[in-house]
Amino acid sequence: MNGAQALIHTLVDHGVDTCFMNPGTSEMHFVAALDDVTAMHSVLALFEGVATGAADGYARMAGRPAATLLHLGPGLGNGLANLHNARRANSPVVNIVGDHATTHRQYDAPLQSDIETVARNVSLFVRTSESTARLSGDALDALAAATGPPGSVATLILPADVSWSDGGMVAGPRPTPTDQLVGARGAAPVEDVLNAIAAALRSGEPAAILIGGRACSGKTLDTVADIATSTGAKLLAETFPARLERGAGRPPVERLAYLAEFTAMQLEGIRHLVLVDAKSPVSFFAYPGKPSDLVPEGCTVHVVAGPSDDVGAAVAALAALLDVASGTAPRQEARTPARPIGPLTATAVCEALGILLPEGAIVSDEGNTSGLFAAGSTAGAPPHDWLCLTGGAIGQGLPVAVGAAVASPGRRVVALEADGSAMYTLQAWWTMARESLDVTTVILNNHSYAVLNMELDRVGAESPGPRARDMLDLRRPDIDFVHLAAGMGLHAARAETAEEFTDELARALATPGPSVVEAVIPSLL
Amino acid sequence: MNGAQALIHTLVDHGVDTCFMNPGTSEMHFVAALDDVTAMHSVLALFEGVATGAADGYARMAGRPAATLLHLGPGLGNGLANLHNARRANSPVVNIVGDHATTHRQYDAPLQSDIETVARNVSLFVRTSESTARLSGDALDALAAATGPPGSVATLILPADVSWSDGGMVAGPRPTPTDQLVGARGAAPVEDVLNAIAAALRSGEPAAILIGGRACSGKTLDTVADIATSTGAKLLAETFPARLERGAGRPPVERLAYLAEFTAMQLEGIRHLVLVDAKSPVSFFAYPGKPSDLVPEGCTVHVVAGPSDDVGAAVAALAALLDVASGTAPRQEARTPARPIGPLTATAVCEALGILLPEGAIVSDEGNTSGLFAAGSTAGAPPHDWLCLTGGAIGQGLPVAVGAAVASPGRRVVALEADGSAMYTLQAWWTMARESLDVTTVILNNHSYAVLNMELDRVGAESPGPRARDMLDLRRPDIDFVHLAAGMGLHAARAETAEEFTDELARALATPGPSVVEAVIPSLL
Repeated sequence: MNGAQALIHTLVDHGVDTCFMNPGTSEMHFVAALDDVTAMHSVLALFEGVATGAADGYARMAGRPAATLLHLGPGLGNGLANLHNARRANSPVVNIVGDHATTHRQYDAPLQSDIETVARNVSLFVRTSESTARLSGDALDALAAATGPPGSVATLILPADVSWSDGGMVAGPRPTPTDQLVGARGAAPVEDVLNAIAAALRSGEPAAILIGGRACSGKTLDTVADIATSTGAKLLAETFPARLERGAGRPPVERLAYLAEFTAMQLEGIRHLVLVDAKSPVSFFAYPGKPSDLVPEGCTVHVVAGPSDDVGAAVAALAALLDVASGTAPRQEARTPARPIGPLTATAVCEALGILLPEGAIVSDEGNTSGLFAAGSTAGAPPHDWLCLTGGAIGQGLPVAVGAAVASPGRRVVALEADGSAMYTLQAWWTMARESLDVTTVILNNHSYAVLNMELDRVGAESPGPRARDMLDLRRPDIDFVHLAAGMGLHAARAETAEEFTDELARALATPGPSVVEAVIPSLL
Repeated sequence: MNGAQALIHTLVDHGVDTCFMNPGTSEMHFVAALDDVTAMHSVLALFEGVATGAADGYARMAGRPAATLLHLGPGLGNGLANLHNARRANSPVVNIVGDHATTHRQYDAPLQSDIETVARNVSLFVRTSESTARLSGDALDALAAATGPPGSVATLILPADVSWSDGGMVAGPRPTPTDQLVGARGAAPVEDVLNAIAAALRSGEPAAILIGGRACSGKTLDTVADIATSTGAKLLAETFPARLERGAGRPPVERLAYLAEFTAMQLEGIRHLVLVDAKSPVSFFAYPGKPSDLVPEGCTVHVVAGPSDDVGAAVAALAALLDVASGTAPRQEARTPARPIGPLTATAVCEALGILLPEGAIVSDEGNTSGLFAAGSTAGAPPHDWLCLTGGAIGQGLPVAVGAAVASPGRRVVALEADGSAMYTLQAWWTMARESLDVTTVILNNHSYAVLNMELDRVGAESPGPRARDMLDLRRPDIDFVHLAAGMGLHAARAETAEEFTDELARALATPGPSVVEAVIPSLL
């Protein structure tokens, strides 16, 4: 058995049975081994950023890591932006990067570069496997690091000769797969800390609970909502949670605004900010003369649990301390926006989505400015998951949709995608078509980097002129997403009125497999 | 004057008057300053890999650097693969990466990451500018590092507050722009070394001169060819030169083959291998049981000049030592392939190109397996430049074509582009349309990663099965490049016969601005 065969056997035995890949010559033995270990589901991407973003989306929905397979330093570079987003999502990813044979390094061949250095930008764990016999053990170490907590990107660099040489050994059951599920472990809560937080929440002073990460779904979300209701604390979620369970029947959670000006309003007067797997709020970017730290003056920040902790246990212990009864929190009522009419706008797109979003849908949200009203219009839709742009590196939405769909057969994925962001990793559409994934892409085509038009003013640039505005303008030439989708084998339609859009979206959501609806809209900004 | 304004003034004053950019919020002051310094030509890319590849192509043709403008660590990541290629091309690039404000770093905001670490993978020079007053000086240091020799990627990290703060100062004339041209400087030749090389070339033992880098164009190429002819040495170029001047009237140069098996044949019996700005030949990848070092046994390697040396001076000195008369070398005769007929093949595409390539054309060659015969069929075409995939990171061809076209108004650029490679950085087409660049893209659509089908066999993978082959197959679904081109505003046509292709290529070459001809061909492999 060669190294590649042993590696794939080991991964599959430990629950990593999906690999998003864009391989090259140095990865050919891994690819060849796919016929020996047919339990590994290999998904081809035409660009590495699709593979890494898909691994992120997969992890968010499956709660366990997929593997990637990338081609040396440049392949890792191409995948880096979405690994950055995965890192910010605390998504577990076993990131396998092929390298030249160990004997070949000394020659500085054209594709040689320092892979470990690049990997450190995004990876909690980086190791180059130097021996076929130890490769599977290295893979298990990477897997353990990836699953954490915190969930993280673990990069295993795989030299071609380590892969091709005989002497591969499948690694045994260490630890058991169920132990590796994200959130199943973590540091236990500290009683004194929780006592102090309970006292703060009982103090009667204005308090807010800010949730993120693993506190945004399942029983932990329910319990946090019960705590907020019982204590009168405001319940908020971080701006871009990796996965937020929401919709009718679930506790309603308001997300922190992207714009610091609005965040300040949301947190005004708060004296105790209680963090549950969320970071203390900071401004996304710095602006001249404005503070980056968004915690109001005089507000004390408390940490119930962080990404390395057992978040569920901490929240349960806090609820017990506070004598909070399960089911205290109000639940979101089902409600549906009115059917939009007239010229298509960003608001109308969001309203149509609120009307049509099916139960169990997964929304990969990279709608940016045009998607601003989607949270409101879908709040009362049937229960669904909302996946956000965790790290701010655009080009995440379509790849995450790929991974979420692979992880969640039978569920409809909606990629709510801004035009500018879509163009970074549009190759994701081809993989959607290839894998017949049930992904409906809504392109919000406002012909601009609209957020930057806003930011250009917000950063205080003095009277930006036409040459600056031109760098944010996507009209020269217009991008035709219907043609682009057709080029990658997807059905697509364009809508210019609210009625057209609602009809096309309904059709797309009802049709198995991927399709695209391009919404031609004016910019909100 | 703020930092950004001073920076752009300084760059323009020192000959860097083109910036390929994909900016974000942290770069908005740089963008705003484009209206203050209108001499900076700013070219928008929809993806960072287009911007960095364009900067590489620009440098290869202009002989001086362009700037890039990228958005934090993820933006640099997206641009990394083509910076890798630029590094291997010894192309000078002033790579500007925006960062959070220095005061914002402590908050670990979502887009924060270790930019310097990533930059080191590709950059000889990395500096974060920490002061508005020193920013222009930092830029000149970066520029000096970029122009070398060797030409290299110099990364200047630009925090937002260094950019937006007042107190920017335009840096003075240090050094003068003409001094910065690549190849204008470099270590002087060492007489003893050249004497030994001259003796080897006069020895009568079989010798080959292997040229690369700056030895592949201009007077240096002519002189090297004269030396080869005078001494009976075989004249070879490295496999993927950054820029090779060739065609009718120029010295014919055979390139080393990509496949080690063929390289071995080219070098068989050679006792002296004389390197002129080229590396000693190594196999592109390692293969089980095969040597990586391709220098034949018993062959001595001599170095006339490397990338840090004054290559032109070294070659001239060697010619003088050898008493080589200028104009000794034979020149390529003009010749044209016969007009191809029948079903379209890769060979027919290359023949049509050989017939139609206009004088002064620039070929950005990422044709991979399907482009194999292009070198032969265009050998006798009117004089032209040939730009290769220097670092092996695919997705270079279209961006390099963008940059070459921006650098060379009035010249026709032909991007000879394989289907799989095209899909990495297809967004380059949009920039071609926006800038009305005279780029004709020929898509060699064989519906596969053909080179990997070959490599899968060459690496000795045992009887690859259908699951492995499926990872190299681009037929599920077929990619329709005519639709993709139309989606980005380019005229495109598909050809399935040699006659159709020849007609469409002729039309495309005769039409100002960009267009695409998709050649539907069987795989050579």
